Amino acid sequence: MEKRTDLAMEAREIWRESAGKTTKLDGVEATETEVNGFSVTTVRVLNENGAEALSKPIGTYVTMELGGLLRREEEAFSRAVETAARILCKLTGLKQGDKVLVAGLGNAAITADAIGPKVARGTLVTWHLTDAMPETFGAFRKVSAIEAGVLGTTGIDSGDMIGAIVEKLRPDCVIAVDALASRSLKRLCSTIQITDTGIVPGSGVGNARHALDRSTLGVKVIAVGVPTVVDAATLAADLMEQAGVEPDEERMSSLSGGVIVTPKEIDARVDEISRMVAYAINMALQQIGIDDIAMLTS
Amino acid sequence: MEKRTDLAMEAREIWRESAGKTTKLDGVEATETEVNGFSVTTVRVLNENGAEALSKPIGTYVTMELGGLLRREEEAFSRAVETAARILCKLTGLKQGDKVLVAGLGNAAITADAIGPKVARGTLVTWHLTDAMPETFGAFRKVSAIEAGVLGTTGIDSGDMIGAIVEKLRPDCVIAVDALASRSLKRLCSTIQITDTGIVPGSGVGNARHALDRSTLGVKVIAVGVPTVVDAATLAADLMEQAGVEPDEERMSSLSGGVIVTPKEIDARVDEISRMVAYAINMALQQIGIDDIAMLTS
Amino acid sequence: MEKRTDLAMEAREIWRESAGKTTKLDGVEATETEVNGFSVTTVRVLNENGAEALSKPIGTYVTMELGGLLRREEEAFSRAVETAARILCKLTGLKQGDKVLVAGLGNAAITADAIGPKVARGTLVTWHLTDAMPETFGAFRKVSAIEAGVLGTTGIDSGDMIGAIVEKLRPDCVIAVDALASRSLKRLCSTIQITDTGIVPGSGVGNARHALDRSTLGVKVIAVGVPTVVDAATLAADLMEQAGVEPDEERMSSLSGGVIVTPKEIDARVDEISRMVAYAINMALQQIGIDDIAMLTS
Amino acid sequence: MEKRTDLAMEAREIWRESAGKTTKLDGVEATETEVNGFSVTTVRVLNENGAEALSKPIGTYVTMELGGLLRREEEAFSRAVETAARILCKLTGLKQGDKVLVAGLGNAAITADAIGPKVARGTLVTWHLTDAMPETFGAFRKVSAIEAGVLGTTGIDSGDMIGAIVEKLRPDCVIAVDALASRSLKRLCSTIQITDTGIVPGSGVGNARHALDRSTLGVKVIAVGVPTVVDAATLAADLMEQAGVEPDEERMSSLSGGVIVTPKEIDARVDEISRMVAYAINMALQQIGIDDIAMLTS
Repeated sequence: MEKRTDLAMEAREIWRESAGKTTKLDGVEATETEVNGFSVTTVRVLNENGAEALSKPIGTYVTMELGGLLRREEEAFSRAVETAARILCKLTGLKQGDKVLVAGLGNAAITADAIGPKVARGTLVTWHLTDAMPETFGAFRKVSAIEAGVLGTTGIDSGDMIGAIVEKLRPDCVIAVDALASRSLKRLCSTIQITDTGIVPGSGVGNARHALDRSTLGVKVIAVGVPTVVDAATLAADLMEQAGVEPDEERMSSLSGGVIVTPKEIDARVDEISRMVAYAINMALQQIGIDDIAMLTS
Repeated sequence: MEKRTDLAMEAREIWRESAGKTTKLDGVEATETEVNGFSVTTVRVLNENGAEALSKPIGTYVTMELGGLLRREEEAFSRAVETAARILCKLTGLKQGDKVLVAGLGNAAITADAIGPKVARGTLVTWHLTDAMPETFGAFRKVSAIEAGVLGTTGIDSGDMIGAIVEKLRPDCVIAVDALASRSLKRLCSTIQITDTGIVPGSGVGNARHALDRSTLGVKVIAVGVPTVVDAATLAADLMEQAGVEPDEERMSSLSGGVIVTPKEIDARVDEISRMVAYAINMALQQIGIDDIAMLTS
Repeated sequence: MEKRTDLAMEAREIWRESAGKTTKLDGVEATETEVNGFSVTTVRVLNENGAEALSKPIGTYVTMELGGLLRREEEAFSRAVETAARILCKLTGLKQGDKVLVAGLGNAAITADAIGPKVARGTLVTWHLTDAMPETFGAFRKVSAIEAGVLGTTGIDSGDMIGAIVEKLRPDCVIAVDALASRSLKRLCSTIQITDTGIVPGSGVGNARHALDRSTLGVKVIAVGVPTVVDAATLAADLMEQAGVEPDEERMSSLSGGVIVTPKEIDARVDEISRMVAYAINMALQQIGIDDIAMLTS
Repeated sequence: MEKRTDLAMEAREIWRESAGKTTKLDGVEATETEVNGFSVTTVRVLNENGAEALSKPIGTYVTMELGGLLRREEEAFSRAVETAARILCKLTGLKQGDKVLVAGLGNAAITADAIGPKVARGTLVTWHLTDAMPETFGAFRKVSAIEAGVLGTTGIDSGDMIGAIVEKLRPDCVIAVDALASRSLKRLCSTIQITDTGIVPGSGVGNARHALDRSTLGVKVIAVGVPTVVDAATLAADLMEQAGVEPDEERMSSLSGGVIVTPKEIDARVDEISRMVAYAINMALQQIGIDDIAMLTS
């Protein structure tokens, strides 16, 4: 059985565990640094061999650990915003005048799946203002933001929805934000992955759907993902395996069917991280400071 | 100064007041009946003369008074749902197999403007299910539902957004739901207008934008509007005029700039009416009873 | 290690598992019936022996399974309301003129803990109306409802808060509603326990606090509890034990610290069950039908 | 007809208008200064003559204008917090070790009335922590916070509720926060009144109830009030009078019955001001900076 995870960093760990810690994986490079007090890991999938080993497309996956934010360290929020903004700047590689669509994926009515919609609501939207009020907004980059909804509540595949908007607006880049599933409890609401490979919406809480990437949308797609849930059946299977026990089919089946593991404080964590990601996107796209963002988006 | 109102019934009253009560307006027909205990007024704008007099496109405007619901009369909720569903059936004139997009207009973050988004959330969405689960949903009509957002929070004109979705989905009919502005306090949250002429989004709380109608979307557009606000400046001007006083420019200017008049219980009223309209749409589109709707949408 | 659970039914199962299925437990009686299509189990703890074996005070614990509601069976909502109302009537044993305080326990800002607050908001409050408007409300029982909050957000123990209100109002009975923890995934949001022994607030998501019962409040306390979470560490330990493996301290510790297991649809489930319980309380206390409740509380 | 307003500053203006601008009012002193860029007016009602003229109890009423915040001036939020905190420090006159209860008045389910509940939720609650975790919280003042609810949803007079809590907790000071009614549109969501005379709950959106002050609660009561609504009937009557027209009974009656005037952006304004007031209370009570407050309360 293949072990699926949305996080490239976790996929690499799983590969290492199965292969033995000493092996070097051809086609995958990983580096770890500290930025603004946060641990930042960059995993580069370089070729088809690496892509197959990690079950992840070729590209760059940057993971930032939010431990300091959870531990309420000093100025952790503003430091986290700046760190994430810096990663976004690098991966988007935007030029002056480039236009951006921020797409919030996920179901706003499910707490653990609401990161995307909340980030869309927190995005500083300027698309309609740069031409209408050039004296105030002329220096701003054109940015739109939509909540794409989920198939179950709209009847429309979120990829189709975003595709239709992209055709209409013709942005230079899409930033897609979604909740993810993790295999590890320690990553819940404490990690952000930013990648230039796009995203498969709904791999967190809902069902996997069509990919959002350059091949489907025709423009660069940067994905921001936050693990908010661990699937209960996956967690149990992992625990069993670690204990060296064969998972019992019957026991496992009672865990499937939509049971999830989350932090008790999931409501507050989702609020905080959504605000952090929205601030980082605003900072990266508009090159403005955190005080201005707070003022313009409240 | 022209007196603007979103309600054809109100436009007709204004015309009659200005013209004298005895005059008959060429090109406008109005009839009033009682359905299920609710007063239902149908205004038909028949020609260009009528359209100009009321500043409303040619078409049919059905207004239903919700007094009985507000007075908590017996079974008022289910009777209101059935009445609105019957009006919708007549105006949509759907054939078997016709597909429908329900578009919720307005800003979900402004209580008085949230009717559209709330109705979209309450719509029974089946588009993706009729093919995927034909045994359960084969008998259902294909229905999608979107919250179109507002220009200020998405950067995209809601007409453009809906246009892009219509092109993708190719529905046979769009039902657009929005909050409206009324001139009269007595209509606040106590009237629904259903019309086959489409709608100009944002004429309630926000700014008027492009029309959503057959000419812009290429399909039939039924609009459901609920007056939730009276513009404070308009109210004051009307009061002054009724009192025979010239409105004072300076005094009036203090009223402009986004001051609105609503019922104190606006939050609860918007919740109830949104649920009522969503139920009526589900009943009209799927031909199912109120108990099934409650069960399927909760 | 003692296995703790808030549900008497579950405590009895655990006792039976540990003691062997054939043993009869002295001091505990259990009967199972079907009411309105729902399975209803009554566990009576008769003496100190039974109380010690189940770690539950002497009294009656009625558990109702909500499977039919989750499976969207016909008229399941109204049947569930009527069943719960009947159990409440029996356990409260109210006489004419008896006054009731409904106390919603738990943290409204944590989805899985919001059952209590939501039920308090859905309670038909009449205490102030029976004297002020005797012609309309004279036939109603005096009912008050409060959200007691949690220590972490008020700084006041919810028992102290309710005690202060009870002293002021002098009700004849308190109905305390709270989210519970279950050991079993299959009971999540699919079971209600109603008991005449009172409750220890916060045993669901938060920390256990002082008991709310006749000895602390001086009046009869009926508790309504709904299991919404399984503690992740407990679940893991149970899985390990079932597999015959010694739980690994280090592994287990990664699970502690506020990680919970819930249904993916926890937001919708909490909404529905809260509405069901509030309706049942209104029906039990005021002897009115479900249509009147819907009308009076919306 | 007496002209009622919750704002002492407005009451003084009304008195001046009726009496002629040149007259000095015996028993009332008013001074205006600028603090941190905000206009701050202090009205002191010194004796019974002043109290009768303004229909306000003897005491100090400090009003702060929030225009700079609404105009999004630089660092307006933090400057507003500091200004309000300074006023609160002065009026509360707390000594070291004094304990405080923050009471949020109003109905959380009505947007325009939700200032009190939202401030209570934003208050840094420490009452239970100073003894339990002295190493971390020993230096903090004991603070509790409750949402008192409203008679219509609890069945309990909020004064009775707070009285019961005060008897239990024995705080040295109560800070009561509520939405107010203004007569003037220009003060809507743009003014805060802080007074040492207590408050009559529900004078904003709901009905007036018993006073909360030293005579009823036995401790010092500081009231923080924010005008969020103008009564539509009052507004109309004022407009008529200004225009020199006799208000028409019939016309006026259509305006009564719970119709209110608010800013269109009432949801966002109430959110922002509630956060501002909560921050100011936290700063005044705990002597901590704005970054620490943001970190500790998010």
